[in-house]
Amino acid sequence: MATAHGAIETPTFMPVGTLGPVKGIDPHDLEQLGFRLMLNNAYHLYLRPGHKIIAEMGGLHRFTGWPGAILTDSGGFQVFSLAKLCKITDAGVSFQSHIDGSAHFITPETAIEIQEALGADIMMAFDQCVALPAGEAAIRDAVRRTTLWAARCQASRRRSDQALFGIVQGGLDAELRATSAQNLVGLQFDGYAVGGLSVGESKADMYRMLESTVPELPPEKPRYLMGVGMPENLLEGVTRGIDLFDCVVPSRHGRTGWLFTSFGRVLIKQARYQRDESPVDPGCGCQVCARYSRAYLHHLYHVKEMLASRLNTIHNLWYFSDFMRRMRVAIAEGTFATFRDAFYRQQQEQATSAACRAADEDVQQG
Amino acid sequence: MATAHGAIETPTFMPVGTLGPVKGIDPHDLEQLGFRLMLNNAYHLYLRPGHKIIAEMGGLHRFTGWPGAILTDSGGFQVFSLAKLCKITDAGVSFQSHIDGSAHFITPETAIEIQEALGADIMMAFDQCVALPAGEAAIRDAVRRTTLWAARCQASRRRSDQALFGIVQGGLDAELRATSAQNLVGLQFDGYAVGGLSVGESKADMYRMLESTVPELPPEKPRYLMGVGMPENLLEGVTRGIDLFDCVVPSRHGRTGWLFTSFGRVLIKQARYQRDESPVDPGCGCQVCARYSRAYLHHLYHVKEMLASRLNTIHNLWYFSDFMRRMRVAIAEGTFATFRDAFYRQQQEQATSAACRAADEDVQQG
Repeated sequence: MATAHGAIETPTFMPVGTLGPVKGIDPHDLEQLGFRLMLNNAYHLYLRPGHKIIAEMGGLHRFTGWPGAILTDSGGFQVFSLAKLCKITDAGVSFQSHIDGSAHFITPETAIEIQEALGADIMMAFDQCVALPAGEAAIRDAVRRTTLWAARCQASRRRSDQALFGIVQGGLDAELRATSAQNLVGLQFDGYAVGGLSVGESKADMYRMLESTVPELPPEKPRYLMGVGMPENLLEGVTRGIDLFDCVVPSRHGRTGWLFTSFGRVLIKQARYQRDESPVDPGCGCQVCARYSRAYLHHLYHVKEMLASRLNTIHNLWYFSDFMRRMRVAIAEGTFATFRDAFYRQQQEQATSAACRAADEDVQQG
Repeated sequence: MATAHGAIETPTFMPVGTLGPVKGIDPHDLEQLGFRLMLNNAYHLYLRPGHKIIAEMGGLHRFTGWPGAILTDSGGFQVFSLAKLCKITDAGVSFQSHIDGSAHFITPETAIEIQEALGADIMMAFDQCVALPAGEAAIRDAVRRTTLWAARCQASRRRSDQALFGIVQGGLDAELRATSAQNLVGLQFDGYAVGGLSVGESKADMYRMLESTVPELPPEKPRYLMGVGMPENLLEGVTRGIDLFDCVVPSRHGRTGWLFTSFGRVLIKQARYQRDESPVDPGCGCQVCARYSRAYLHHLYHVKEMLASRLNTIHNLWYFSDFMRRMRVAIAEGTFATFRDAFYRQQQEQATSAACRAADEDVQQG
């Protein structure tokens, strides 16, 4: 996938820098972890420090010091999930800031204006995301409005160096998902996202929605599954033709001491790691596993040291970066099915060994 | 100054890693900033995770991943300033942990045992630090007990690969300072520290105490001024023969947005930096000044982003590291007096220009 800040190998995972950086992480760290594309939140940056200040400072890349490519979400999802007193009409959305209660009105045109000021490589159309569960009429109306707004986003673009992706909505209604995708494809976007998922629905529902959406999208354009997710979701997304993912999971879980490994999760706060000299994952190639023991990470977490969040996030980001890299290699070598089987076999073994350990402990406790 | 983990050029400043790391900072960062010696707090590490765990994990260097040299303070100062229900006798100090109220008893022998378990390159003798102001009798008793404890620390050492420094006490009494120094020199330590200063006394008092202490110390042994301080204090300390300093100022001030520069402090939270594209200090060689604008650091501080603390600390540590490096160069070149004059001239110019700016603003508002 070509961007104004370099080519991106897909499928790929985007780390999330809500307010600029991924929490506690330098651009330099992200580069070293193998990322070339990250996500920034237009809604948050519009509120603080404001898109106009960022434009005056030369745009997001220069402001944040990130030399790679940037995708900005339009703010649609955040407006509906974070803002207060949200009022939606075909004209746009009026809402109050979740920070200071100040009144704002965002239209498809202002969403593009904000993202052009931020200067992302990839902008997202302004969409209406319905909270699930929702009735058919509500979903149908959101799909209609999302198409209307997408067309207005397309029409209001003034810069030619930024890509614009449309966002498919449709709740958990397979037919409306397909309709939404067809509507957007008619508007000829540079890429297409599947929005409104990873909001609490089952895995089966998520995958079913992908299966009714992705076949409607042109194969030569990037497809992006928004806000997803856990490693298994990435694997299943790629299986169904998804190229791009973003999620706060590596950083947010990292801050709570949840570490991703090749053999399942490590909850570093557990007392069993207090004297554990081994790295988080002996098979991991990250700088944290190269330098630190579980015992040290346990200590840092326990004493609430800022470095705990940073090191845990770096480890998790490496896991996600490497997981995507291994999927790309498997696809290139035609061994993706084997890769997928191995992933589930490892999960199964992990579950079995955890069950054995629990049984052992039961026996020991007599 | 030779240590088991490399030679240290003096005068030097030690960054403080209270619980292992300097808050938010990797060992790799410290190395890049030019530090080869850091300080860890024996008191804090004794309480969490415990010196025995650290010994089991191979000692502090291996546990924290820091390849340079480490000095551990004995915990004397922390026991008196942080712990609760502190009871002092010649035998030792009983106190309650500031974390969980648990009861502890530290003697000179256990202070050495803890520091030997931690495995620092330089250990500090266990001393009694009196809170100022204090009467002559109280200071005299603390000096007596500090000497008694220092002798017991010397006698209880079991490892030959660690240096042990004595700590001079004596409050603000020049005569007792000299006595304390003479007592300790008689015990033949590997180096000598000036303790009990930087606790709220005036600069004049601090410098007066140095002048009555340092001349009593053998010139071939390192002299360490504990818990100091601001750049001017470092300059005046070096002028009076001090080789080592430690202070939380670069990291603690960094976390509050106070940035040290060649032209005085920059308080990054001030609104004037909101649209300021220049680096914190255009003359600075650190990676933060190379990559980020004041506007970005202002934004990160304003939104309480963890990266703000990290970047501000890195900048400040670089300032301290470079300030010491420039003093070493000036000493080697025989131009220290010129260096010192230039520092005060710059401070004076800064004060004048701040006064001019304030006057300008008055005129503009007038």
